[in-house]
Amino acid sequence: MNATHKAPVEFYFDFSSPYSYIASEWVEAVAARHGRTVSWHAILLGATFQAAELKSPVSHPIKREYSVADFQRSARFEGVPYVAPPQFPIPTQNAARVFWWLHAQDRSRAAAWAHAGLRAYFTRGVMLSDAGSLRALCAETGLEVSAAEAAWSDPVWKERLKSENDAAIAAGIFGAPAFVVDGELFWGNDRKPQIERWLSSGPF
Amino acid sequence: MNATHKAPVEFYFDFSSPYSYIASEWVEAVAARHGRTVSWHAILLGATFQAAELKSPVSHPIKREYSVADFQRSARFEGVPYVAPPQFPIPTQNAARVFWWLHAQDRSRAAAWAHAGLRAYFTRGVMLSDAGSLRALCAETGLEVSAAEAAWSDPVWKERLKSENDAAIAAGIFGAPAFVVDGELFWGNDRKPQIERWLSSGPF
Repeated sequence: MNATHKAPVEFYFDFSSPYSYIASEWVEAVAARHGRTVSWHAILLGATFQAAELKSPVSHPIKREYSVADFQRSARFEGVPYVAPPQFPIPTQNAARVFWWLHAQDRSRAAAWAHAGLRAYFTRGVMLSDAGSLRALCAETGLEVSAAEAAWSDPVWKERLKSENDAAIAAGIFGAPAFVVDGELFWGNDRKPQIERWLSSGPF
Repeated sequence: MNATHKAPVEFYFDFSSPYSYIASEWVEAVAARHGRTVSWHAILLGATFQAAELKSPVSHPIKREYSVADFQRSARFEGVPYVAPPQFPIPTQNAARVFWWLHAQDRSRAAAWAHAGLRAYFTRGVMLSDAGSLRALCAETGLEVSAAEAAWSDPVWKERLKSENDAAIAAGIFGAPAFVVDGELFWGNDRKPQIERWLSSGPF
């Protein structure tokens, strides 16, 4: 089958999800190795958690300590730089609205923004939830700052993000990262080996 | 370092945990490949879930459907036979007490019972929660049925299971399967690649 006929890997992430960040650093290379592209979807874990009656792993006693250590170990395992942010988790709706605003113009710029935001938060502790920090990141990334700020305050992009969250939940997504490959849903950075097998040899 | 000086892989499982069952089918081979043995620990997820304020993945809307499918896909991925039990999850305290009763006599018999119970439930739907089914499984496995039944009703083994649950929780365990390798905790069947790297080349 020609690479152009293969469906992209649908990749759902939240800007405040450590496992999303780790996966964001391998998903394009894994997809490309198998003639696929990646279709990025910024979502809010707050929305999927509410729908599935879940909480963040760090909201649970005992699991919290393990998770904080596992974020770092899983990053080392994949060879991804990771510095635990000073505040975690953080609200990410503004970064996600900028994503969808860019997505409507140019999907590759939206993907570049996803990388920029995830890397800024998880390697330099840039608080995406803080308007000043987000403006600075926009400037650094080459976005027009006033237009980006107008986008994250605009009801159009608020509504778009809400409808993307709803679509993700309707697709069975309850956490991040999530991947849809040929209609098959995989949840978690740790589903990488299963995704690789699916991409290389199809359904199993 | 001589193999005899290496610490065993500590393996914590619940008889009603699909991911524990899948992991139980690879943990000994993976450990042996690296000169390790496996030390088995039957625990109750009900106890760890309560301590960590967690519920079963199948108790959550949306996550339920994914989990049921992922149990089966993860079993296929590892080449492990799996038939979704007619009732799930089930109480497993009697099977776990039999485990600890055997463990006090002969650890290899306890491990054999763990395999027998997990395989019976996850490939043949044998209801370990049903006294008659459990008696039949004991007989099939070569245990003295009346002694096994006396053990699962005995306050000694009830207390032993409780103290093993408490010890697991004190060790930071909130779910199953869990593995402790050289003091490092790994949670989940999907931590197999990290465990393999640790066993082959040490801490990372």
